[in-house]
Amino acid sequence: MATIITLTTDFGLADEYVGVMKGVIYSRAPEVRLIDLSHAIAPQDIGQAAGLIAAAYPYFPRGTIHLLVVDPGVGSRRRIVLLQAAGQLFLAPDNGLLTPLLEADLGQAAFAVEREELFLSPRGHTFHGRDIFAPLAAHLATGLAPAATGAAIPVASLTLLPQPSATLDPQRQELVGQVLAIDHFGNLIANIHQELLAQLQALNPHATLRIKIGRHHLHGLHSTYGAVPKLAPLAFIGSRGYLEIAVNQGHAAQQLGAARSDKITISFSPLYKEELSI
Amino acid sequence: MATIITLTTDFGLADEYVGVMKGVIYSRAPEVRLIDLSHAIAPQDIGQAAGLIAAAYPYFPRGTIHLLVVDPGVGSRRRIVLLQAAGQLFLAPDNGLLTPLLEADLGQAAFAVEREELFLSPRGHTFHGRDIFAPLAAHLATGLAPAATGAAIPVASLTLLPQPSATLDPQRQELVGQVLAIDHFGNLIANIHQELLAQLQALNPHATLRIKIGRHHLHGLHSTYGAVPKLAPLAFIGSRGYLEIAVNQGHAAQQLGAARSDKITISFSPLYKEELSI
Amino acid sequence: MATIITLTTDFGLADEYVGVMKGVIYSRAPEVRLIDLSHAIAPQDIGQAAGLIAAAYPYFPRGTIHLLVVDPGVGSRRRIVLLQAAGQLFLAPDNGLLTPLLEADLGQAAFAVEREELFLSPRGHTFHGRDIFAPLAAHLATGLAPAATGAAIPVASLTLLPQPSATLDPQRQELVGQVLAIDHFGNLIANIHQELLAQLQALNPHATLRIKIGRHHLHGLHSTYGAVPKLAPLAFIGSRGYLEIAVNQGHAAQQLGAARSDKITISFSPLYKEELSI
Repeated sequence: MATIITLTTDFGLADEYVGVMKGVIYSRAPEVRLIDLSHAIAPQDIGQAAGLIAAAYPYFPRGTIHLLVVDPGVGSRRRIVLLQAAGQLFLAPDNGLLTPLLEADLGQAAFAVEREELFLSPRGHTFHGRDIFAPLAAHLATGLAPAATGAAIPVASLTLLPQPSATLDPQRQELVGQVLAIDHFGNLIANIHQELLAQLQALNPHATLRIKIGRHHLHGLHSTYGAVPKLAPLAFIGSRGYLEIAVNQGHAAQQLGAARSDKITISFSPLYKEELSI
Repeated sequence: MATIITLTTDFGLADEYVGVMKGVIYSRAPEVRLIDLSHAIAPQDIGQAAGLIAAAYPYFPRGTIHLLVVDPGVGSRRRIVLLQAAGQLFLAPDNGLLTPLLEADLGQAAFAVEREELFLSPRGHTFHGRDIFAPLAAHLATGLAPAATGAAIPVASLTLLPQPSATLDPQRQELVGQVLAIDHFGNLIANIHQELLAQLQALNPHATLRIKIGRHHLHGLHSTYGAVPKLAPLAFIGSRGYLEIAVNQGHAAQQLGAARSDKITISFSPLYKEELSI
Repeated sequence: MATIITLTTDFGLADEYVGVMKGVIYSRAPEVRLIDLSHAIAPQDIGQAAGLIAAAYPYFPRGTIHLLVVDPGVGSRRRIVLLQAAGQLFLAPDNGLLTPLLEADLGQAAFAVEREELFLSPRGHTFHGRDIFAPLAAHLATGLAPAATGAAIPVASLTLLPQPSATLDPQRQELVGQVLAIDHFGNLIANIHQELLAQLQALNPHATLRIKIGRHHLHGLHSTYGAVPKLAPLAFIGSRGYLEIAVNQGHAAQQLGAARSDKITISFSPLYKEELSI
């Protein structure tokens, strides 16, 4: 089967940068399938890209090669690493981009990419996506063994991004997290996984959850937007498996005045349990 | 020949949503050709997507599969339907997205998509593009018969979007329509088909058409932008086969202060007929 | 090997225009690889597209077909030309889009595209990307000889865009150029090639270059962003081989208040030579 290579960058689509990376890849591995995950990562926003790849990789087959080029340290001595995780390959600067995979303990092996003869020649110092990532992905797609890209390094040596984690306080029956991302629809994606919500719910199985953000209170989780009136807010488990807050046919971030990093507190509602889909 | 699958959504390109749909498709049908028609449909704007697919499908070969995911009712009881029309397949929520195909009487057969075993499992309630549309498209591309996706339903049972139609008044020798869309260049695309214009012209074959929008009057149709001076407005039959109003090397919507739904009135000009390309 | 076809247009990605071009190409040449270089060229900005294709083509293999559809004169009598250059094919309106290739004396042969039977039929006057460029690219990718697209014309007859060139004044030991483009990161890309900089440096091999833009002075060239503190400006040879001015993890255009066409003056610094990577 043709290998899939995905691209996640902060390059935007206006300049030639992404197209040039694809030219380098297709020149050397014409049979691959290229998929853009996003080129609209905010410049140098490692956390945004890390969340995106964590949400996307489960939908790709074994052997997929993911290129992650969000690289404030391009040209410095930061390593470029190849991580084998969940049966797939992730090529990224060692700057925290792979944190969610590492925290989920999915890393199987890691290599420090360093074999110059696999890179474009001559190569520059400012566009490693073109000069290192693209040719290396083509080599891997056409049969190069991961171990042949460089020295094996301990998975535990890879850089972890400090990530705000959601915390459950069983004493207070309260779960505190925050807004991790805001998507194209204005949906607020929280750092609160459905399993953590289930743990909170288990403390009081028949109670309705109360989700507090800013001065807004939402009661209960719903399974579809249409469960609330048009332009009303709702909370639900989103497509990433995390809590999301949306407005039915509206823009939650604008309507609720919410921003990334805003605190979300979940406790039990004095109201009855309405609907729960976790 | 490799099957073409097109994607039309309101997902934007910043999040992983489109890439994940492609991962699901390529995993199951690596030989397809994926083409993005647009992911910049305004959120939940069914009419915009309907106009776009109507303009695009004639340029695709028989057997092409079009995925249309603009779906304010995702997760509700609205049906997902598969329409066979013009020798191609259209997979969409039954919310009016297929109106232009239905009004042109192109529908050959329709099916209510409902066989859970064809979907992703487990599936969520908020991302049917990933969980239903993508795997189903892959099944269709690799040989599943349309009739095997669900029960046959009458084509006439599909939802029609009320669409403002242009009307010709032979008595008054006047045609009234409106701006249906504004494209990237600022061109105003009207809901006035070239055939309707020809009917008006037939009432007075030697007269010049007068196109009125707001307080602007344009005289005659032209065949190229360069037929008028730089920054002058002109009317012509656009690439969709409908009347368009543009400004040569300018932005008509801004320059004429025009917006979607604005009224366009066409009658005969007291001036001589200049150029007519219909 | 599958032929690569690249697309560079000012069509944007919101409308169906790009997808329709791809439908026309894939219908006729399903084995090609399509790569978007950019669809975000500013409307009718020939110079921007010319700079982009000049930066991109070196990373594509022999036989690649580049479609350039930035065409203020669409439908007028301007020619459409096919240029063979650097072992690749470039299909473009004859309006200056190919200037950098011509000035670098890369043109090997040129043809005036004119065989109607190779175009879409019926064809319109306003969307040659769909009606002429796309079908012609498919014909070329499936074996049509370039000479079969139309009459051979002298390469020297192609339109050149007047381009501001950087000039070295050996007397004054000064090099004057300007900002040619601003990329997605806000980097200023100058029209000053690394070879011209090397000529200046040769006049005074041990001196440090001083780069002046507006009221800002930068000293020396660096090889990586990280060579200067966060949010400090730096000059370097960019991925296109031209001088660039950036701000480490910042947006140079905004921070330096710089715009396209701004003058850049390079002379020698009274400071010592720091670092030089040309």
